[in-house]
Amino acid sequence: MPTLDLGVLVSGTGTNLQAIIDAVGGGTLDARVRLVLSNKPGVAALQRAAAAGIPTQVLSHKSFPQRESFDRALVAALREAGVTWVVLAGFMRILTPVFLDAFPMRVVNIHPALLPAFAGVDAQAQALAYGVRITGCTVHFVDSGTDTGPIIAQAPVPVLPGDTRDSLAHRILEREHESLVTVLQWIAEDRVSVVRSSTGSRPRVVVKGRSPLLGTSAEAR
Amino acid sequence: MPTLDLGVLVSGTGTNLQAIIDAVGGGTLDARVRLVLSNKPGVAALQRAAAAGIPTQVLSHKSFPQRESFDRALVAALREAGVTWVVLAGFMRILTPVFLDAFPMRVVNIHPALLPAFAGVDAQAQALAYGVRITGCTVHFVDSGTDTGPIIAQAPVPVLPGDTRDSLAHRILEREHESLVTVLQWIAEDRVSVVRSSTGSRPRVVVKGRSPLLGTSAEAR
Repeated sequence: MPTLDLGVLVSGTGTNLQAIIDAVGGGTLDARVRLVLSNKPGVAALQRAAAAGIPTQVLSHKSFPQRESFDRALVAALREAGVTWVVLAGFMRILTPVFLDAFPMRVVNIHPALLPAFAGVDAQAQALAYGVRITGCTVHFVDSGTDTGPIIAQAPVPVLPGDTRDSLAHRILEREHESLVTVLQWIAEDRVSVVRSSTGSRPRVVVKGRSPLLGTSAEAR
Repeated sequence: MPTLDLGVLVSGTGTNLQAIIDAVGGGTLDARVRLVLSNKPGVAALQRAAAAGIPTQVLSHKSFPQRESFDRALVAALREAGVTWVVLAGFMRILTPVFLDAFPMRVVNIHPALLPAFAGVDAQAQALAYGVRITGCTVHFVDSGTDTGPIIAQAPVPVLPGDTRDSLAHRILEREHESLVTVLQWIAEDRVSVVRSSTGSRPRVVVKGRSPLLGTSAEAR
């Protein structure tokens, strides 16, 4: 089985990147992180990568006149590094078709809500403000919409009485780390495929031999 | 503790009504169903009510020139029967403020999805078409929007590989029955209150001494 050649796009603290690094180091994820790309200089994610001996690069979106030219630079850097699959780990820029067509159904994002509920920014605060009793996280393929791509896996997380935005975000983040690493290992094992029906309906993700509903035993904690 | 005097509004088969009838009969729900009101003649829900010795009434919305006059007739019938809390059990008409102001935060609905995802009709088919890994049901207070009212409780239900609309709907329906009866008993025990903050944000539901995330142990089945 060939190892998964990952590129990880970051904008901030990079705790999901750290989960990937730890899983690779611990032997539970058959992947190599070929490049960590940040659109912001000086973020903690870059230090995490450097500490793990992973090549890093900063490409500031502010240096490019359009989203498309920024995306072309991202694609070139990732290809140069031998990346075949891309993970968005807190990457706060919208990708254009220039990027998505270069890695078709090979860009994975993790979102801190049970999509399609609470897409967009600060999903944890959105969930808390709405008053839901259950939220979670979603690992999905990225398409040109905001958090609209085909869902690979979801994990539920309870909202507890007295939760603040931060206590809820922390509880979700733990499940994000597990969920992201789990899905990446499925991809490494070639279990994940996208099925397009002839009727033009939404593409669906099939996961061979694993349940795409994650962590329901732990969820009752 | 006074018994909860329920009115149940129906339009169809009435399996959620049956769950209420069975729970009252079995002594797990301290309530009396004072009236079952249908907007359609001849539906199975009316037979279920009659078989349990519960008064029934049919008020066809087609007999009324406007939604408001229909709602006034519903309110009059419910008040005449001594109803203080109203349950929508598959009732397929939108209620106006005429009705909602007569029973403020005393109208409860059950919806077959984890709201705010998949509001409106055929939530089960919507969830399946979207490709989510987890859906569920939501018991909520009714406001003037479509499935937008404050959430009392939610129960998660997995979407399984190979699910059809009907297999998923059946799995959700079992949880609807449990969830609805559980919430009504909380109301009978005076555990449910609505909190409005001074900042004009969304009203929140507080449940005293019970977890508003329902059935997570059974959910791992």
